[in-house]
Amino acid sequence: MSVRYLTAKLAQQIDEELMSATGAFSLDQLMELAGLACAQTLATVYSKEKYPRVLVCCGPGNQGGDGLVAARHLGMFGYKPTIWMPKPGSKDIYKRLKTQCDNMKIQTLAPADDTSTLRDVLARSDVILDAIFGFSFKPPVRAPFDTALPLISDSGLPIVSVDIPSGWDVEKGNAEGVGLNPEVLISLTAPKEGVKTFAGRHFLGGRFVPKSMEKFDLNLPEYLGFDQIVELPRAGTQKL
Amino acid sequence: MSVRYLTAKLAQQIDEELMSATGAFSLDQLMELAGLACAQTLATVYSKEKYPRVLVCCGPGNQGGDGLVAARHLGMFGYKPTIWMPKPGSKDIYKRLKTQCDNMKIQTLAPADDTSTLRDVLARSDVILDAIFGFSFKPPVRAPFDTALPLISDSGLPIVSVDIPSGWDVEKGNAEGVGLNPEVLISLTAPKEGVKTFAGRHFLGGRFVPKSMEKFDLNLPEYLGFDQIVELPRAGTQKL
Repeated sequence: MSVRYLTAKLAQQIDEELMSATGAFSLDQLMELAGLACAQTLATVYSKEKYPRVLVCCGPGNQGGDGLVAARHLGMFGYKPTIWMPKPGSKDIYKRLKTQCDNMKIQTLAPADDTSTLRDVLARSDVILDAIFGFSFKPPVRAPFDTALPLISDSGLPIVSVDIPSGWDVEKGNAEGVGLNPEVLISLTAPKEGVKTFAGRHFLGGRFVPKSMEKFDLNLPEYLGFDQIVELPRAGTQKL
Repeated sequence: MSVRYLTAKLAQQIDEELMSATGAFSLDQLMELAGLACAQTLATVYSKEKYPRVLVCCGPGNQGGDGLVAARHLGMFGYKPTIWMPKPGSKDIYKRLKTQCDNMKIQTLAPADDTSTLRDVLARSDVILDAIFGFSFKPPVRAPFDTALPLISDSGLPIVSVDIPSGWDVEKGNAEGVGLNPEVLISLTAPKEGVKTFAGRHFLGGRFVPKSMEKFDLNLPEYLGFDQIVELPRAGTQKL
């Protein structure tokens, strides 16, 4: 049995249950483990020797928080991350996560009203962590991300996307053609329907789904040893 | 330069700074990373094939919380943990962490007014994670831990202690001789003065100390790759 691909609605439901009184997780805990898994995925594929300069692109929602956590861990791993976060979330947790990055001497670009800042930093980056939109994204892509996505694509830099490549529909994928084309994807908790045909390297993170969630028939693959991530077979290939 | 061994006071100061407005970490975040490091240390030394049954002994303070997080991750790794927590902490976080363990079908022993429960479970355990007392411990050892420590010692089971072996003075070590004698130690953030002569395998966890804490001259060793733990040279030997 292969892993279950989630609809946007089911992804939302599982997320809510994890953080309900029943699941008892705090957002801080889940974000920490998710962000760590994102950082480990990037570090698995792109070495800090060849790809030291990571541009971490953070959206305004929870996925932006995962990105901030990942940026901090990447700093710990010896990368040189820079954060682009033009619309910081208003929740207290984003401010705390941002301060933690400041304490790691990680630069956050000032929100700019034009796209020159992003263009500049793309020119001096080696790899991108795309933590812009997550499973609660609904089209269309709004400013400033509408102009940012083409810039990021045109940079030609390798991209690691979190959960769903930014601009893709959570269920229909990149049908509209406006989304990023990452080389690597890190799905959190379980992959979403929209990435069923994703042809790049695909990892799964979020080794926190308890046995009590077996009712959702997620058919999660086995994580090895004490790894926080596991690679999924590529679309169209046999199980690894 | 070798790693700095912390006094109880300095350990407290660093902990407070990490969770202050300056450090901006939440207890949830630090406990998650600390507990993960504890679980990974145990899993590094004691395989789940040979040592599946882990008795996680949790004290009433923050270290008990680290133990609960470690128990959950050990469950994720495929171990069969059991929790002994005779004096659960009153903070909300302990209740949430306990519920997360319940959701992983991890058994928590009922607090007992005698020591027979502990004796029973020791007889069917393979290894112990000692998360009873941490760096804020001050002697003497109080009930029910005063009778528990000798029982745990007498079991002859291998012990992994968190931060400071339970019963040891944080600065003077096991001078009184009432403490546990672990085979393995996982120090969090930085080792404490009391374990300077600890002769077993010694790991360090807590890869979250930001660059802004360089002022404390911790001289932390380099963690490799994206590991959350690093092994320290044994006392009295050359650097590994």
